Amino acid sequence: MMADMTETPHPLYDRHADTLDRALTAISQRGYWSAYPESPSPRVYGETAAGDGKVAFEAYLGRDFPLDQVGDGSTVRTEASPFGVDLGVGYPHATADHLTTAASTALPSWRDAGPQARAGVCLEILDRLHRNVFELANAVQFTSGQAFVMAFQAGGAHALDRALEALAYAYAEMTRHPGTAGWEKAAGKGDPLRMTKTFHVVPRGVALVIGCNTFPTWNSYPGLFASLVTGNPVIVKPHPRAVLPLAVTVRYARQVLAEAGFDPNLVQLAPEAPGEKLASTLAQHPAVRIVDFTGSSEYGDWLEANARQAQVYTEKAGLNAVVIDSTDDFGGMCRNLGFTLTLYSGQMCTTSQNILIPRDGIETDQGHKSFAEVATGIATAVSKLTADPARGVELTGAIVNDGVLERLDEVTKVGESVLESRTVTHPAFPGAVVRTPTIVRLNADDTATYTREWFGPISFVIGTDSTGHSLELLRATVGEKGALTAAVYSTDDAVLDAAETAAVEVGVHLSANLTGGVFVNQSAAFSDFHGSGANAAANAALTDGAYVANRFRIVQSRRHV
Amino acid sequence: MMADMTETPHPLYDRHADTLDRALTAISQRGYWSAYPESPSPRVYGETAAGDGKVAFEAYLGRDFPLDQVGDGSTVRTEASPFGVDLGVGYPHATADHLTTAASTALPSWRDAGPQARAGVCLEILDRLHRNVFELANAVQFTSGQAFVMAFQAGGAHALDRALEALAYAYAEMTRHPGTAGWEKAAGKGDPLRMTKTFHVVPRGVALVIGCNTFPTWNSYPGLFASLVTGNPVIVKPHPRAVLPLAVTVRYARQVLAEAGFDPNLVQLAPEAPGEKLASTLAQHPAVRIVDFTGSSEYGDWLEANARQAQVYTEKAGLNAVVIDSTDDFGGMCRNLGFTLTLYSGQMCTTSQNILIPRDGIETDQGHKSFAEVATGIATAVSKLTADPARGVELTGAIVNDGVLERLDEVTKVGESVLESRTVTHPAFPGAVVRTPTIVRLNADDTATYTREWFGPISFVIGTDSTGHSLELLRATVGEKGALTAAVYSTDDAVLDAAETAAVEVGVHLSANLTGGVFVNQSAAFSDFHGSGANAAANAALTDGAYVANRFRIVQSRRHV
Repeated sequence: MMADMTETPHPLYDRHADTLDRALTAISQRGYWSAYPESPSPRVYGETAAGDGKVAFEAYLGRDFPLDQVGDGSTVRTEASPFGVDLGVGYPHATADHLTTAASTALPSWRDAGPQARAGVCLEILDRLHRNVFELANAVQFTSGQAFVMAFQAGGAHALDRALEALAYAYAEMTRHPGTAGWEKAAGKGDPLRMTKTFHVVPRGVALVIGCNTFPTWNSYPGLFASLVTGNPVIVKPHPRAVLPLAVTVRYARQVLAEAGFDPNLVQLAPEAPGEKLASTLAQHPAVRIVDFTGSSEYGDWLEANARQAQVYTEKAGLNAVVIDSTDDFGGMCRNLGFTLTLYSGQMCTTSQNILIPRDGIETDQGHKSFAEVATGIATAVSKLTADPARGVELTGAIVNDGVLERLDEVTKVGESVLESRTVTHPAFPGAVVRTPTIVRLNADDTATYTREWFGPISFVIGTDSTGHSLELLRATVGEKGALTAAVYSTDDAVLDAAETAAVEVGVHLSANLTGGVFVNQSAAFSDFHGSGANAAANAALTDGAYVANRFRIVQSRRHV
Repeated sequence: MMADMTETPHPLYDRHADTLDRALTAISQRGYWSAYPESPSPRVYGETAAGDGKVAFEAYLGRDFPLDQVGDGSTVRTEASPFGVDLGVGYPHATADHLTTAASTALPSWRDAGPQARAGVCLEILDRLHRNVFELANAVQFTSGQAFVMAFQAGGAHALDRALEALAYAYAEMTRHPGTAGWEKAAGKGDPLRMTKTFHVVPRGVALVIGCNTFPTWNSYPGLFASLVTGNPVIVKPHPRAVLPLAVTVRYARQVLAEAGFDPNLVQLAPEAPGEKLASTLAQHPAVRIVDFTGSSEYGDWLEANARQAQVYTEKAGLNAVVIDSTDDFGGMCRNLGFTLTLYSGQMCTTSQNILIPRDGIETDQGHKSFAEVATGIATAVSKLTADPARGVELTGAIVNDGVLERLDEVTKVGESVLESRTVTHPAFPGAVVRTPTIVRLNADDTATYTREWFGPISFVIGTDSTGHSLELLRATVGEKGALTAAVYSTDDAVLDAAETAAVEVGVHLSANLTGGVFVNQSAAFSDFHGSGANAAANAALTDGAYVANRFRIVQSRRHV
């Protein structure tokens, strides 16, 4: 008999069963829940946690990363910190054939361990990562350019929440049927037909996760853990500029796997040498049957078209839009949007780019506001958040790479600036590349400019004929190019409903009248979906049933009793 | 507010809620259950049902089919009955653009009706089809060549069960989250953040179902109802030789839709004129976002490669295998396999083709049996079932098309015949094309012959070095070309386990030691999975979570309370 037919409770499953149960409840209710506290406060994590994590991070710098993988002997060093810190970590390189062979070898015993054992081990990996969350946060900060608190939250606690969320969906999907079922059918006057049926959860094969520069953990964890818990060995290919956070992740995952008696090659790091195109080689390797990718539309589209032997999940670029019709809290609206544009210098896939405002202005609690006054209101909010360099950099962080700087330069030529980007000297990291957001005024007919993504601290206030026209533009731009987020501000229920209909039609998640502590660019695990799969910005949501159901198959056997 | 935010119970949902509840229980337990009685007996369906159904069927013949679709004015007549009956039904032709436009127009109100209303309407359609199941069975019989009882069961009751099963999975998937959720997060010393989140079930777009010649309803219904209940308008493109069963289906579906106040163009028939390639045009149409197909590997592979704008579900050809190692019921084994080879003249996608037997023979309850004795045992069982023409044709039915006849001719040249195919005159339908099964002896090295699918009443007994060798060949053939079914006969638990491991590795459903009233080519709805998606014979199972989860997306909106 194969192992998953007679599964005995795994000690790691027992240890984490309460967490899993709570997560399963959360994904069915989609209300507020979090498993990993998002505050890095000593009151939550203890007095020494932050310092210990920093020390652990610094111990990695300037040397070969301690990873027990067999490579081809060469070492990869490709990182350059947006904070100007010298990282200098070397990672063991391995070929696609070597990685896929090691992964394939690890598969059968992991498959046969069954859903509970795999869930237990994966939950223990999450727990191990959480115990080292400050180390992880430092690695995210200094590779992505996120400020510390954001790196701790988005790169640590929230990433772990999203991983747990994906794991819970996958566990629910694997266990929605029993492992075995009795079947008894009346057969005329004779004895009934009686059979025992066994339903094996069979992984697709080797999974590949291709990480991104800005959110190396948050965007990688759902795919990593959804694939792993469903039985697929995972090869983690980090972005060349953000290797460390995933190297730390792989290191602890391998520790837990080995301790639990499994082949640590179930999770492998695949650092890419310059010009090597390892991601493409892996993505088209016959053994690779699942690919998760976050990054450019160009490469995501290439993967979808060319990694045909695999199930490909992509999150790509889009045109996030805001429709401003009216508001009963003009100050709150401006502050809310200002924060969104400032956070991580707008380098989130969810940051708004196209802010659509009737060129005749809008009605507000402060009376009529002209187009210019609305634009200035948002610009002023950004200015206030970034005026003090020491406070500003804790929101903006640093610029992730030179492509953003090039766009900041290019955008000065496309329209009238409402707010200019400034260079800021980081008080703590003089080598950090810091820029404040720019806001550029466009007209509705400047389509060539605003129908492409300007990733970075760049947004447009776009004058339209009316709110109806704004909604038309939302439909057109998101319908064509996709988006991960949309927002609407209106005091008119009919406008809110029209915006909701438009959002449903172009498949984008919509936030209405955010004026307080919730921001359009932030999504809460277990409640908000990230991506919909219903427009060009992503072919899947990061965490839902559709995201996990195709990562394994059910193979049945039946025998007469 | 959009309708699915404030869904009120739909009267059709209320009418069928018990059936749906029972189906939801069945798919979570995977034991025996059926909603639609499989016996065509008057004791079940009443004295007049069979006659009424026959009359209704005959009323369609030789005239234009009564369908309220607007077409382009031309009429399609492409059917030729395997029973030699003159069908002569004309169907209204429409262009791909016309069909997709009508479908797209019908989408929004169906989407906004919400999961319960859609489920209620779909359940009412199934009920309407069930009330007309004899009419449907006749239509299946005379287009597919199935004998009547099989057409009633596989084409009627079981097809409805599979439709309900897919509908239940889809309903479970759509309703696993609430339509709205409250979210409340503590925010320091201030008031907590409070939001209301709405989760819209948004269909992918227009769905296309491409039917096959042999199982026009059974293979089409799961995709049709999974797509429809998740909000996608469905265009049904029947096989040119098996239009009537799906025309009847579309007719009743449109009736129910119209009665319930929905646009009947949510379900449209797309009959294909000779040489028109309407299926390919529709499959690549930008509005078509889901394709379900059953048929040849060549066309299924083409769809997967070319209908890139759509989610494509295919069931294709494979190499179904039987490994015979030993048995404690030689007579039962031979009778069971003989029945499988005879039923519908082996024209099932699940019929065994390659029967792998050690050339030194096997141990049985009747002592050692040589390879030749095993082959003869199976051949004799087939002969007994087909000896009497009147009884035989009720199992074999008729040959579906000339391709099968050509293969029957070709196969006489590839090996030594153990059992020759005979031409049989059907006592009731002198024009029927009836052939009994042939069994051909091959050796393990005749790979060129047995590694292609010989669809029809053709199977091979293949001499191998040992059972281990047989399992190797199962792994190699199914691993390369796929299969929908595999069977093993052995008295040795180690062999059964080895076969199960091989089946898991190549992703094929396995039946062990079938000697009674369960056959490897038959699967029971709500318990057995059909197809696994884990090998080349199909990229999905017909009814499981993975089959339904990608037919819709969740689009969220959130507002402060």
